[in-house]
Order: sequence, then structure tokens, then C-alpha cells
Amino acid sequence: MKKIILSSLSAAVLATSMNAFAIDAEEAIQFRQAGYKFMAWNMGKIKAMAIDGTVEWDAQQVQNAANSIASTASSGMGALYFPGTEKNVGNTKTRVNPDMFKDPEGVNKVGGAFYQAATELAAAAQTGDKDAVKKALGAAGQSCKGCHDKYRMD
Amino acid sequence: MKKIILSSLSAAVLATSMNAFAIDAEEAIQFRQAGYKFMAWNMGKIKAMAIDGTVEWDAQQVQNAANSIASTASSGMGALYFPGTEKNVGNTKTRVNPDMFKDPEGVNKVGGAFYQAATELAAAAQTGDKDAVKKALGAAGQSCKGCHDKYRMD
Repeated sequence: MKKIILSSLSAAVLATSMNAFAIDAEEAIQFRQAGYKFMAWNMGKIKAMAIDGTVEWDAQQVQNAANSIASTASSGMGALYFPGTEKNVGNTKTRVNPDMFKDPEGVNKVGGAFYQAATELAAAAQTGDKDAVKKALGAAGQSCKGCHDKYRMD
Repeated sequence: MKKIILSSLSAAVLATSMNAFAIDAEEAIQFRQAGYKFMAWNMGKIKAMAIDGTVEWDAQQVQNAANSIASTASSGMGALYFPGTEKNVGNTKTRVNPDMFKDPEGVNKVGGAFYQAATELAAAAQTGDKDAVKKALGAAGQSCKGCHDKYRMD
């Protein structure tokens, strides 16, 4: 698989500095999907405790899950969207809308909203206040949806 | 897919409290693989900057990557190893050695070593000192290997 030096969108998406990690397009798609999937697990845990009430509230677990989400949001995942990753590669399928790659301004907006929501969720979790977490989780979910609606194909 | 209430190993593995998140075995395998894969990306970034020198040192990126790894280590992934997840499920393959599920003491040991190494890596990254990061990354890699050698089949 041809190695590609990352370029373009990364700086735009989550305002991380640009670097030249030589990973190929298929790896990049897999890494970003892993990040989203792991966040989904952590979102689900918080939801079960703060909203659904199907699992007993555990402030430490909520904090750990929220920290994981926030650190993912800060990890510079924008670097995983570079030319060549806008389509399926090998056996790795992506649901990204290729239009995303032509809309750095829109990407900045949803990326920034997600970063802010994840940071606020971690701050709410830190307080241990269930209502604050519930509200922040709702906002984080909306920020996820903001990107999915615009840049994810179903 | 039959939903399973998590039990058994979780408390043992990473000393997180036990909770009843109803996810099925296939989801659990996918979530844990996502966690490891996303960590691999972050490990790779730090390696490129601190050891290989193929990417210019960027203290903030190193810190973000190390925080992501440490928060993953604290996220209670032990809860994703429950009976039914010791084998392939549906289209989801796992490389876990089923013997792991009979060795809570050994699991505690490698899980604890990984947690400690990840925490120390984040602390080293926080200092911004390249040599400290290099050393801590080596130790973290060893702690990964400690588990792979024992509980991962290739």
C-alpha cells in the first residue's frame, strides 16, 4: 500500500498542528473508525448511567468515560482525513461523504463544536453532578449528530 | 444478537467497579479492538516523534496522544472481556487466548502494569522532556507486549 504523507485537512479539522506521519489511507480510515467506535462505547456507558438509568450512577466511571471522549476529541483526528481516505480502500469501507474534503470551513465548525462539547462533558463529569452530565451528554450527542448529518453517508 | 449482562472479569482486569452495561459479545469484541487500535495510532505518533525522529517533536501532540492512551487505560476495558467474548462472534474475529479468562490473577498483573505504564507515559509527556517520553514509551510498549505474549494468539 502506497504510503502517503498526511497533508491538507488535518490542521483545519481540529486545529492540531500538522505533521508528517506516514500512514496509508486504509490505516487512516481504520484508525478514525476505531476512535469513533471507542467513543461510542464511552458515550453509551454515560448514557446508561446519566440518562437511561439502566446502570447505577458511578461518578468515577462517568469521569473516566468522559475523559476518554475528551482526549479523543483532542487527539488530532483531523490528520486521519487526507486525500485518498474519502473512499473505500481495500477491504475497508468508509461512510464519509467525499464532499467533506471540499468544505474545510464546515469541517472546522463541526470539529470545533465537537471539541467544545467533549471538553464540557469532561468538566461536567468532573463535578460528579448527574444533571450537569445529562445536559452535557445531550449537547455532545448533538455535536456528533451535527457532523454525521452533514458528512456521513448512511 | 442475545444481550448479555456483563459480569466476572471486568472488576479483576483493571480494577474498575462492576456495572451492568448490556452489550452483546460481538459489540464487546469490537469495542475493545477499537480501543487497542486507537491506542496503536497514538503510540505510533509518539514513537515517530520521540524515537524514530521521522516527525518533528511537538510537545503538545505528544501530550495529547499520551493523554488519549492513559484515558483508554483508565476506561475500564476489562468490562469488555466477559464469557462469550473468548471466541469469534458473527463476522468479528478475536485473537484473544481463551486461557486469559481462566487467569484473573495474571490478567490483573498485566492490566495493572499497562495502567501504570500509560499513566507514567502521560506524566512524562506532561513534562515535555523527549528523553523521559522515550523511556516511558519503551516501558509502555513492554507492558503491551506483556499482555500480547501471554493472552494474544497470532
